[in-house]
Amino acid sequence: MSGNSFGKIFRITTFGESHGPAVGVVLDGCPAGLELHEDDIQKELDRRRPGQSEITTPRDEADKVEILSGVFEGKTTGTPVCMVVYNKNQQSKDYGDVKNLFRPGHADYTYFMKYGIRDYRGGGRSSSRETIGRVAAGAVAKKLLSLKDIKITGYVKQIGTVKGEKFDEDFIERNPVRCADSEKYQEMKNYILKAKDRGDSVGGIVEVIIRGVEPGLGEPVFDRLNADLAKAILSLPAVKGIEFGRGFDVVYACGSENNDEISPHGFLSNNAGGTLGGISTGQDIVFRFPVKPASSILIPKQTIDKFGNSREVVTKGRHDPCVAPRVVPVAEAMASLVIVDSLMINKNKKISDFS
Amino acid sequence: MSGNSFGKIFRITTFGESHGPAVGVVLDGCPAGLELHEDDIQKELDRRRPGQSEITTPRDEADKVEILSGVFEGKTTGTPVCMVVYNKNQQSKDYGDVKNLFRPGHADYTYFMKYGIRDYRGGGRSSSRETIGRVAAGAVAKKLLSLKDIKITGYVKQIGTVKGEKFDEDFIERNPVRCADSEKYQEMKNYILKAKDRGDSVGGIVEVIIRGVEPGLGEPVFDRLNADLAKAILSLPAVKGIEFGRGFDVVYACGSENNDEISPHGFLSNNAGGTLGGISTGQDIVFRFPVKPASSILIPKQTIDKFGNSREVVTKGRHDPCVAPRVVPVAEAMASLVIVDSLMINKNKKISDFS
Amino acid sequence: MSGNSFGKIFRITTFGESHGPAVGVVLDGCPAGLELHEDDIQKELDRRRPGQSEITTPRDEADKVEILSGVFEGKTTGTPVCMVVYNKNQQSKDYGDVKNLFRPGHADYTYFMKYGIRDYRGGGRSSSRETIGRVAAGAVAKKLLSLKDIKITGYVKQIGTVKGEKFDEDFIERNPVRCADSEKYQEMKNYILKAKDRGDSVGGIVEVIIRGVEPGLGEPVFDRLNADLAKAILSLPAVKGIEFGRGFDVVYACGSENNDEISPHGFLSNNAGGTLGGISTGQDIVFRFPVKPASSILIPKQTIDKFGNSREVVTKGRHDPCVAPRVVPVAEAMASLVIVDSLMINKNKKISDFS
Amino acid sequence: MSGNSFGKIFRITTFGESHGPAVGVVLDGCPAGLELHEDDIQKELDRRRPGQSEITTPRDEADKVEILSGVFEGKTTGTPVCMVVYNKNQQSKDYGDVKNLFRPGHADYTYFMKYGIRDYRGGGRSSSRETIGRVAAGAVAKKLLSLKDIKITGYVKQIGTVKGEKFDEDFIERNPVRCADSEKYQEMKNYILKAKDRGDSVGGIVEVIIRGVEPGLGEPVFDRLNADLAKAILSLPAVKGIEFGRGFDVVYACGSENNDEISPHGFLSNNAGGTLGGISTGQDIVFRFPVKPASSILIPKQTIDKFGNSREVVTKGRHDPCVAPRVVPVAEAMASLVIVDSLMINKNKKISDFS
Repeated sequence: MSGNSFGKIFRITTFGESHGPAVGVVLDGCPAGLELHEDDIQKELDRRRPGQSEITTPRDEADKVEILSGVFEGKTTGTPVCMVVYNKNQQSKDYGDVKNLFRPGHADYTYFMKYGIRDYRGGGRSSSRETIGRVAAGAVAKKLLSLKDIKITGYVKQIGTVKGEKFDEDFIERNPVRCADSEKYQEMKNYILKAKDRGDSVGGIVEVIIRGVEPGLGEPVFDRLNADLAKAILSLPAVKGIEFGRGFDVVYACGSENNDEISPHGFLSNNAGGTLGGISTGQDIVFRFPVKPASSILIPKQTIDKFGNSREVVTKGRHDPCVAPRVVPVAEAMASLVIVDSLMINKNKKISDFS
Repeated sequence: MSGNSFGKIFRITTFGESHGPAVGVVLDGCPAGLELHEDDIQKELDRRRPGQSEITTPRDEADKVEILSGVFEGKTTGTPVCMVVYNKNQQSKDYGDVKNLFRPGHADYTYFMKYGIRDYRGGGRSSSRETIGRVAAGAVAKKLLSLKDIKITGYVKQIGTVKGEKFDEDFIERNPVRCADSEKYQEMKNYILKAKDRGDSVGGIVEVIIRGVEPGLGEPVFDRLNADLAKAILSLPAVKGIEFGRGFDVVYACGSENNDEISPHGFLSNNAGGTLGGISTGQDIVFRFPVKPASSILIPKQTIDKFGNSREVVTKGRHDPCVAPRVVPVAEAMASLVIVDSLMINKNKKISDFS
Repeated sequence: MSGNSFGKIFRITTFGESHGPAVGVVLDGCPAGLELHEDDIQKELDRRRPGQSEITTPRDEADKVEILSGVFEGKTTGTPVCMVVYNKNQQSKDYGDVKNLFRPGHADYTYFMKYGIRDYRGGGRSSSRETIGRVAAGAVAKKLLSLKDIKITGYVKQIGTVKGEKFDEDFIERNPVRCADSEKYQEMKNYILKAKDRGDSVGGIVEVIIRGVEPGLGEPVFDRLNADLAKAILSLPAVKGIEFGRGFDVVYACGSENNDEISPHGFLSNNAGGTLGGISTGQDIVFRFPVKPASSILIPKQTIDKFGNSREVVTKGRHDPCVAPRVVPVAEAMASLVIVDSLMINKNKKISDFS
Repeated sequence: MSGNSFGKIFRITTFGESHGPAVGVVLDGCPAGLELHEDDIQKELDRRRPGQSEITTPRDEADKVEILSGVFEGKTTGTPVCMVVYNKNQQSKDYGDVKNLFRPGHADYTYFMKYGIRDYRGGGRSSSRETIGRVAAGAVAKKLLSLKDIKITGYVKQIGTVKGEKFDEDFIERNPVRCADSEKYQEMKNYILKAKDRGDSVGGIVEVIIRGVEPGLGEPVFDRLNADLAKAILSLPAVKGIEFGRGFDVVYACGSENNDEISPHGFLSNNAGGTLGGISTGQDIVFRFPVKPASSILIPKQTIDKFGNSREVVTKGRHDPCVAPRVVPVAEAMASLVIVDSLMINKNKKISDFS
């Protein structure tokens, strides 16, 4: 109801603020008997943490995870798994009058209007540090999916005007842009660095591919698999949309070209992006989403303070000139959570499953 | 859990199949004391029903609504409002071997894979007749929103290659395309009719604008207003994506141009599309979504039957060559449901509201 | 959220008022492929309907059910099953000033305080006619349970001061009191008829036994099987409590006698009533609950009207002098819903189930 | 879905095992702006912790709470409040073959059957240490209720055969039995100590009174206030039933005596226990529940191990001979959570509240 939980059977609740004592997650609904170690979680957290290259923020956050519950002798017990990352450097620095300012592009204004109070330190709850909990739970989901040979791969498809074309999957985790096109990598990187030099930021487009999903996942009529994925992805900071399969370009298609024909050997195309009527077809599920340029920039901008006075603001500190690369593991985590949940929900659909 | 319900406090559950006895909705959570008559509902249902012009299907479905509960002496009582439309023409026609075929672009295959059984008459549950329940409940939501001067307007922005540019709000309901540009209307219509002549169908893009929303709606971090709207819209048949504000084009922007500055008189731009951190800013909420070309076409296509044999299929009958115009009232209904629910959820956020 | 739904995966939403057009239920989450006919439902509705004997109200309500959705060619399709009973005799009789009176023991006062408006005809939503929807959905649940040889049996254990002792299961449905003790039947019946002659009503105690449940049902820590059953039963009109196994008498026991010992052949006693830590042990689940004397009586009582004036009221019309016998099928329905839901929820608990 | 969450708007999720790193709770839905300090929580935790007197276990657990999120500058921010108690003494002692035994009366057997694995250290998740999270969240709820002058008082009404009669509210927290009858206190205490001397345990009955609740709380038809309270209380370890108002004794009453008459100055009696039709009347809400004798006893009992072999077991260690006194603050916590949630849910019931 208050928006800090996600999922129905495999359900997470995240908590924590950027500069509070900790950020974390409670994962409820994980089956008992899954081997789970802190390393499984840490591996994914390391993919999202800052300080990984010159195009991400140089802030060095170790983000070490601790499992507080739900695991016994190296296995899950079926009870809630609470995972916590204690925040370092939460010493009370002087926030000056930043605490009264609403930074453009940030959630400062809206949190204040909603709650009448806000934790202004580093964005508080609206900080992207909140996604640590998502990634931690997503790591568990990924482990479950690996048991069913389902693989979720995200990568950066476009940075500013530079579009990737080739899809070299192995290249993705070997470059800090997380693009899949080794020929366009340098151009993308330079695009980001140029913005960084100006104290500015740039946007990107991320694509996610889910392979190995069986037909039948997703619930009609509201909880369609694509609708649940849309909600999951749009719940990420900085994401402004989503499209599946042919996406917005479907406007240029006719039904006769867009309908995916079926042969005895399977579908002949995948314009639909892996679902029909909101239910998985068994093909790859493919979606893309735009990531806005990071809101924290070094260029002065006009705003107001909480008393309504006109002010100028610059977001000091060290920031990502482009957040798209770091969104990739978070998007994968969200997609993993959705797929695991769908698999669990799908257990009670046929009378043969019940009896 | 099974996907037929939507909303948290203002919550609907739809039921019914295309050719079963009835389609309908149970709306739970409507405040007591709202004046409500069947006319209020019928008005919106008439906007979505077929047979309205030469560019929609000529099937004539009266779609008369009956209120079965929750209203007493012309007012809601706070108990569930059940609204039903009995299906006409559900006589058992001969479905020949269509009943064993999976029509491309339809949900035939996926429903069969999920449930092992399907009501093949007119698409059964996956028919767009299911949206009748949504529109009926949405009509109640609209009535509630009118009490707060919140207005939701949808229109067709693009048909195939023809983009609308002007925004003449009064024109929308006066043309069957539901476009807002009277100069482009004829061109859009012709685009549709040409496809119709070929037995084919075309796609479109719909835009929705929500005006009058107060700041503070939407819940961090998963139930962001834009995430909930995304889920609502992606739960509609034929919708393949969504974007807010600047949307996918945000990839071409820098932070310094994309951040919406704030003056003492309000925001100076609305690239964000009305939310920051997933919470409404008080500006217009603006989103667009692509509607795929209708799957039912008269052009033969390759498919399989449920025994795995290769087959050819043509969707006989009378169909919409373009569903985008009829999606408009349904999208408005879904947006209305989301906004009403958000308003209700937002009641318990400040200690001053509680005590 | 508004209290008209029950269950998580196997979930029902009831709607309808006593004298509105209809009462009914939408059942979501029923597996596809279950054979289901209106007769299956009608059979259970006939057990709860009035007019069955001299100790129930002589009102004759046929209560014929119609299935509006979710069943195709005699089988469920996995989509919502809407079942409706249209109300007869809803002609607008003169309610005189009853409409402004709060009848003692009824929900008139509380509904008015909550909603500021109420449907005063026959209790409106608070009428026990609402339970028709529960019984209809419960009939589907019972059918599912029969596939797993789970049997739920309710009976009247006590009427006023008359306690049943023998448990003759076959006798239950052969006597209008629904007691299981043929030797005490006449005494119980006379107790009721004596109250009826005075225009008064009497209370009773009902016991329910659930046999054939596997170990492992129920979720720690809040959704214990006994907690969910308690909620289900306390949600029935006129029920004032519940106890499991040894129940309140546990206060007189020591741990050394109350703990149920276990042998290689099973538990040696069942003081717990079939659950430990809220999870089923595989033994019979046994609970009892008190049913208050019906609130509608012919003896004048003091009350107020909605303007705060002191008034005297007599509930005219034909009423049950004792509702316990008619509560039996409704309690069985509620228990059936809980058990089916628990079975479905229990599908995702072990990693071996998932992979 | 997995049973570790409770409440709808004011919603808690508890986590943690008896001998794991920590137990705790995430509270979501607390309004922003409530003054909250760790002392507020600690005060209630101190009421439930062991080692308080000779009739509770001498284990000394400090149970110091830490707030990890959701509070900033001494006030709640509207974001999730995570509260944690780190477990002391979780050093890995030798559990010998206890780890393979199912202790009678405990949840060992059922957890093993459900999950195929269990944390056998001190009961793991089924330990009453889980209730620490409930009490912590309940302390926040109590603080909210105090703003509305709602007061919840629990006390021990009966120990074994010794019934309290007088109700001296001030006495409750001044005696370790938490009874309200100073004349019966010594007798109750002796009853407990005698069982303790035998290595045995005894049961009790607890009563809870909720004062100051406005009329209108609770939702028809399933989420009745009494049904929600029943679920809350039955979700506590060792509780075997509940009754409201006149409770089981209602079987001996006639409608003419049991119906609570109403005068212009209010109700003339409270047999109903504070609700009608599941909605609060504004009178005191009164309920009682039996607490079984603690399962951990020093008297040898027959059981089996997980291989099915017959075994004898004695629960070594220091245990409570009677848990009823320590259940009191936990029951108050659960009742507080239900009432706060009901108040929040009740915000959207009248059209005048909405517009």
